[in-house]
Amino acid sequence: MNALRIGIAGLGNVGAGVVKILSQNAELVAKRAGRPIVVTAVSARDRSRDRGVSLDGIAWVDDAAELATRDDVDVVVELIGGSDGPALTLARRTLKAGKPLVTANKAMLAHHGLELAEAAETAGLPLKYEAAVAGGIPVIKGLAEGAAANRIARVYGLMNGTCNYILSRMEAEGLGFAEVLADAQALGFAEADPSFDIDGIDTAHKLSILAALAFGARIDFAGVACHGIRNVAAADIAQAAALGFRIKLVGLAEAEDGQLFQRVHPALVPIDHPIATTMGSLNAVVVEGDFVGRLFFQGRGAGEGPTASAVVADLVDIARGDVRPPFVMPVADLAALPRAPAADRRGRYYLRLSVADRAGVLAELTAALRDCGVSIESLVQRGTSGSDAMVVMVTHEAREADVLESLARMAASPAVAGQPVMMHILDF
Amino acid sequence: MNALRIGIAGLGNVGAGVVKILSQNAELVAKRAGRPIVVTAVSARDRSRDRGVSLDGIAWVDDAAELATRDDVDVVVELIGGSDGPALTLARRTLKAGKPLVTANKAMLAHHGLELAEAAETAGLPLKYEAAVAGGIPVIKGLAEGAAANRIARVYGLMNGTCNYILSRMEAEGLGFAEVLADAQALGFAEADPSFDIDGIDTAHKLSILAALAFGARIDFAGVACHGIRNVAAADIAQAAALGFRIKLVGLAEAEDGQLFQRVHPALVPIDHPIATTMGSLNAVVVEGDFVGRLFFQGRGAGEGPTASAVVADLVDIARGDVRPPFVMPVADLAALPRAPAADRRGRYYLRLSVADRAGVLAELTAALRDCGVSIESLVQRGTSGSDAMVVMVTHEAREADVLESLARMAASPAVAGQPVMMHILDF
Repeated sequence: MNALRIGIAGLGNVGAGVVKILSQNAELVAKRAGRPIVVTAVSARDRSRDRGVSLDGIAWVDDAAELATRDDVDVVVELIGGSDGPALTLARRTLKAGKPLVTANKAMLAHHGLELAEAAETAGLPLKYEAAVAGGIPVIKGLAEGAAANRIARVYGLMNGTCNYILSRMEAEGLGFAEVLADAQALGFAEADPSFDIDGIDTAHKLSILAALAFGARIDFAGVACHGIRNVAAADIAQAAALGFRIKLVGLAEAEDGQLFQRVHPALVPIDHPIATTMGSLNAVVVEGDFVGRLFFQGRGAGEGPTASAVVADLVDIARGDVRPPFVMPVADLAALPRAPAADRRGRYYLRLSVADRAGVLAELTAALRDCGVSIESLVQRGTSGSDAMVVMVTHEAREADVLESLARMAASPAVAGQPVMMHILDF
Repeated sequence: MNALRIGIAGLGNVGAGVVKILSQNAELVAKRAGRPIVVTAVSARDRSRDRGVSLDGIAWVDDAAELATRDDVDVVVELIGGSDGPALTLARRTLKAGKPLVTANKAMLAHHGLELAEAAETAGLPLKYEAAVAGGIPVIKGLAEGAAANRIARVYGLMNGTCNYILSRMEAEGLGFAEVLADAQALGFAEADPSFDIDGIDTAHKLSILAALAFGARIDFAGVACHGIRNVAAADIAQAAALGFRIKLVGLAEAEDGQLFQRVHPALVPIDHPIATTMGSLNAVVVEGDFVGRLFFQGRGAGEGPTASAVVADLVDIARGDVRPPFVMPVADLAALPRAPAADRRGRYYLRLSVADRAGVLAELTAALRDCGVSIESLVQRGTSGSDAMVVMVTHEAREADVLESLARMAASPAVAGQPVMMHILDF
């Protein structure tokens, strides 16, 4: 059978990884795909950079958008990145030109995924994006195809390796957030501008894609409540550990009663939960289905090899002629689910406060909780420096709005210093 | 689009589960499959049994093989079980009749998978079997499609829920194998004749299928060295725990230098390995690829819901028109890999011996190891009852044949009572 000819836009780590796989594992991939898959054209900014792969015999295109219309390109792989700009231009032109599109671009999908999916459906073209969520883990396939029999109740996981790396090192070395971040940046594990990662935006992009797949819902990136890890203190990690938890940046989506709840937040995960044992830069995703129960996927969420592996898996599917709606069902069938309010959610909560170490303070705090109907499962008070003390509490299951109200009342007390810390406990 | 009409042979738990999913989640499955999937005919032994699902409007067929040729059946789901007999007859007739086949039958695939795959390929038909390995976990899809870009070095996992349940309870309750097995049988977690499970045959069936997919090799079920869990003692579990390991029944397949190694055996798994934290009846599979690294899949490996979930996932793929060679590449392209000898394998080993508690015994044992070139990483001697002692050793990395030779020498000593125990340590 004729070779499937690939044009790659963007030759960073991932792009170079795709070239490397399609050269190094060419024979194997051809057998699995039923036909050779060859890179015929590439486009990137810097022509002279050494990428550790041979580009001999591959056409170099200065304008990425040109890949969409070249006669020697059957499929375009978009690895430029960015939600708009050249990536979006190329994606639109590729589908318009009647060619399948593979992308690793979660930001673009979170913002323009439905538009692109509609264009792909109308043209009967594959639009595939396994690499956009959790890197090398085949979680798009696992959720969209593997769990297709199930009504999905919940999908959640660790989808940002930088955050998981930082939190793992904070725990292992007892260091503060800023210190570990600076070191991660020096080592190249965190970006110079790390806000997309550490503020949870990258996780929110990925979560909004998973939620659409899981619940047959329209992507609602703006509906993701997003809290990053900047405010996670070494003290929280230590206290959580003492209570039997690890703090992880969890992206969580649930659908209930026709409403969609999406949140990215640092949460306390019980130490025996597979999410809690996912350390370093690993990613993990849990899918809960009504028949299959809990499915757990773990692997490398970023990096040249894993991400390129996911891109090539998409190319193999395309070579095999597998064409499905990009979001499982036609965009027209996706529901615009209203956002579920966080106020009514129930769960256990971790609270940490700095207080003056004097008589009556604890009575004041516990009265605030009582008055809001929040009962306490465990409480530890520790003297810290001089006249201050740290109070750590775990609540029994309570309504989120009630916990927030009690927290506001406590924060207003002159005995409480600084902003109290509240984190969710993952009890599923 | 027209409905895809399903005939189901075998209405045990899994068959009833498939009927249940296709009724309860009918609308959802239709959206994901692009067309309705409906059960039109079933065949099972006992017509009167209450299966907790309505069979109204579904034709009842006495001879399962008839499903292959009925006009109202587009796809046959074989859930009869057994490597030969009616299951195999039905499978052959279904493909001969030009209909796609879905099966959960690992025994049949391990023995006749290549013959059936060839028949399917020749006719251009899907033959799908996600439910045959690790129940609800989409590991066939994850390996065959998700990891398609990778040269696979190794695939291994826990693929028998009964064994994992027994080992987990032995650890949690400090009980012996026979006691837990009897209780598991009473509770319905183990079969009346449990040998397929506890002797590792069921795991070997599944492993031989995974190996074919992973390495592009012809299925070689007879080439799986198979050791079950009958001889795992409570003492081994306790000693392993003290050393930082859990004992699990691991099915392992590796391809190196054009040779295939396949083994099912109880192994010591480091406590922080995701396989080790897979408890109870859960299953887990690890796939190691040259680009993606380690992929880990965990979930429910048996039971009505999970297994039926996998069957319906296959039906959705068929409804979507996805047709690929059942073993990724055409059977003619699968290599008949020679079996790799175990003798030359290197690793660490756990050894346990009962010895007479007298001077010189330890010197005798350690001399036997030294003379075979096996060095000791750790050694514990514990007095047990009266004049006996238990010696537990962990070796440094050593050649398997050398360890076995040293073990034979030690077993020949009059100071050693009974058969020494040797188990592999999973160091990857």
